[in-house]
Amino acid sequence: MTSLIDRLSPEGRNAPESGIVEVFNAGWGRDDLIPLWAGEGDLPTPEFICRSAKQSLDRGETFYTYQRGIPQLREALADYHKDLYGKDFSPERFYVTGSGMQSIQLAVQAVAGAGKEVIVPSPAWPNITAAVEVHGARAVPVAMREEDNGWQLHLDDIEATITPDTTAIFLNSPCNPTGWVANLDLLKEVLNLARRHKLWIIADEIYALFYYGEGSRAPSFYDIAEEHDQIIFVNSMSKNWAMTGWRIGWISAPPVLGQVFENLIQYSTSGVPSFSQWGAVAALRQGREFLEAQVARARAGRDCLLKGFQDIDRVRVLPPEGAFYLFFSIDGVTDTRQFALDLVRQTGVGLAPGTAFGMGGENYLRLCYARRQDHLEEAVRRISAWLPAI
Amino acid sequence: MTSLIDRLSPEGRNAPESGIVEVFNAGWGRDDLIPLWAGEGDLPTPEFICRSAKQSLDRGETFYTYQRGIPQLREALADYHKDLYGKDFSPERFYVTGSGMQSIQLAVQAVAGAGKEVIVPSPAWPNITAAVEVHGARAVPVAMREEDNGWQLHLDDIEATITPDTTAIFLNSPCNPTGWVANLDLLKEVLNLARRHKLWIIADEIYALFYYGEGSRAPSFYDIAEEHDQIIFVNSMSKNWAMTGWRIGWISAPPVLGQVFENLIQYSTSGVPSFSQWGAVAALRQGREFLEAQVARARAGRDCLLKGFQDIDRVRVLPPEGAFYLFFSIDGVTDTRQFALDLVRQTGVGLAPGTAFGMGGENYLRLCYARRQDHLEEAVRRISAWLPAI
Repeated sequence: MTSLIDRLSPEGRNAPESGIVEVFNAGWGRDDLIPLWAGEGDLPTPEFICRSAKQSLDRGETFYTYQRGIPQLREALADYHKDLYGKDFSPERFYVTGSGMQSIQLAVQAVAGAGKEVIVPSPAWPNITAAVEVHGARAVPVAMREEDNGWQLHLDDIEATITPDTTAIFLNSPCNPTGWVANLDLLKEVLNLARRHKLWIIADEIYALFYYGEGSRAPSFYDIAEEHDQIIFVNSMSKNWAMTGWRIGWISAPPVLGQVFENLIQYSTSGVPSFSQWGAVAALRQGREFLEAQVARARAGRDCLLKGFQDIDRVRVLPPEGAFYLFFSIDGVTDTRQFALDLVRQTGVGLAPGTAFGMGGENYLRLCYARRQDHLEEAVRRISAWLPAI
Repeated sequence: MTSLIDRLSPEGRNAPESGIVEVFNAGWGRDDLIPLWAGEGDLPTPEFICRSAKQSLDRGETFYTYQRGIPQLREALADYHKDLYGKDFSPERFYVTGSGMQSIQLAVQAVAGAGKEVIVPSPAWPNITAAVEVHGARAVPVAMREEDNGWQLHLDDIEATITPDTTAIFLNSPCNPTGWVANLDLLKEVLNLARRHKLWIIADEIYALFYYGEGSRAPSFYDIAEEHDQIIFVNSMSKNWAMTGWRIGWISAPPVLGQVFENLIQYSTSGVPSFSQWGAVAALRQGREFLEAQVARARAGRDCLLKGFQDIDRVRVLPPEGAFYLFFSIDGVTDTRQFALDLVRQTGVGLAPGTAFGMGGENYLRLCYARRQDHLEEAVRRISAWLPAI
């Protein structure tokens, strides 16, 4: 049967299997599983959000709708951004998508065709690289390094990677998996670099609110960019409002690109269900309290784990500044893929192996702490008890 | 602002605007509008389908789920196909997607990368060509011709179009917009041609049940293909069960391609909401009666229009064998784009101009008849009354 596979396009055939799924498959179905491998909390979507979607279904809103998203959601997005960034936003710059993932896919389609290059600081969420390469472009990693004061991205390293084929820099801050957060100075430098080279920035600030520094959110390109800078923001309803399963995201980009994104949406999925979008409207309009509780819960999870890991000598971890992952290493563990497989099989604790996150991530493990504290404590206990055996 | 557009990838920048939207924009919002331009009926989704989705929301099924679709939906699809085609299907060959459109996108991604060619009989639904070209491949039209006994597709014309870059033949039967249906002999010839040249077939049989010939469905590649033929079937929940707004489709393809489609889904939208999928399960399991009523309604709409158009001398129309569109021409009308704009502005009847459907469609107008009969009758009256004026 390999012959059928051989007849596929190289882009299709070579799309990589997720490096997390293998571990998932090794542990899935265990009664005592503590699944900390995915970027997903353990709370279902709040009832007020589900109710809004159900009411839309009851109104019979089951027809084709606007490719750019229903006006009510685009207005709610504009208001949400105004609250968050303290300036006005036009609803015309927001395009509703079928997930943060699709936002990335569409952004890449828009700015990086076959043969082009997108610079991606690494370690990185693996789907970014895959989304670039499935379109025949090349994701060029820039190594980030863990130094004593945390992960660092150096502007020189980005600049050295630019070639005539480079069309975009993908910047994810706060970062999945490292928890790194770009400060405002770095964002300014990256923006200036991009302006100088006429490059696009794809700004993934999905975890903006999950921020443990000063202020209520991470520094953002919105703080420094002009309306018509070449920045495409990709975002998602998933993390803030416990809506991972809803598959709704958005793009924020200069309104002049509206027709292009409408076309790209038309030819990929042709829009997002109206009733799901009404769920998103409720989340944005009435979800502030829930969102604050989500962030507080993640912060508590983070603190609980940092404290627990302090007592395990072999664990090396720095406090993440943002997002909701610990990205840690263990003395003596070099094959993190095998470690993650063994750990889940023997203890039921599911972690994502660093090998899934590309260059520079190989020696790490990723743990999602947006979860119940007793489960996190139990995970630390099991890891601590099992480590001496390996 | 054109400079921003100039900096996009050619694939992104050149994705065409839908040729139907312009007419839509000219008429949208009129009180007396009769919108027959889209491929969509006028009934909302049946309550039993909505209820199933709402119950899933109530169960808290709002988390990430299987990239290939929930097992219950894949099993329901296998059973539905067994009923329809009278043989066994493995759930393993079905992959749930975020619309028929996404099924096409994924199929094209899988088989036709940059520089490759996909043969598309024309006139055709414009999104097929756009989906091919947005991935850097080329859609090569093969002219179909309207002869006295209906539209014809000649195998010789397909064969003459094959080049070393050809990787697939896209066959949509029953056809949107023409209503043409491939007979079993032609399907066999196309399959043999594809086998001989080791080409993929992308089989769009979305309108299989909307068939006005002998038997309860149109002839299908399922009637003649082997399990491991190079055929990727693309399909959708939209038309059969009045679920256009739900954005759920499926791919049916040899199970050996499962991991490839899982990866491509992962890197485009990362799956379809569980709760929507439960709506689809209800549609497949309990939707037979509704589906039969949908088909009967379309047949009645077709008959009503054919009868009404008989009395308008200038209208040239042959009875469509399948799907739910009339694709007709009017003596003296050569600029169908302008005609459709004028018609909707002056009478409120919304038709899709044939210019939107590519080579060979320019002189036609497309009308969707899966609608209320009194609206269809009123549309005929208005067209009939207005025609003498032009």
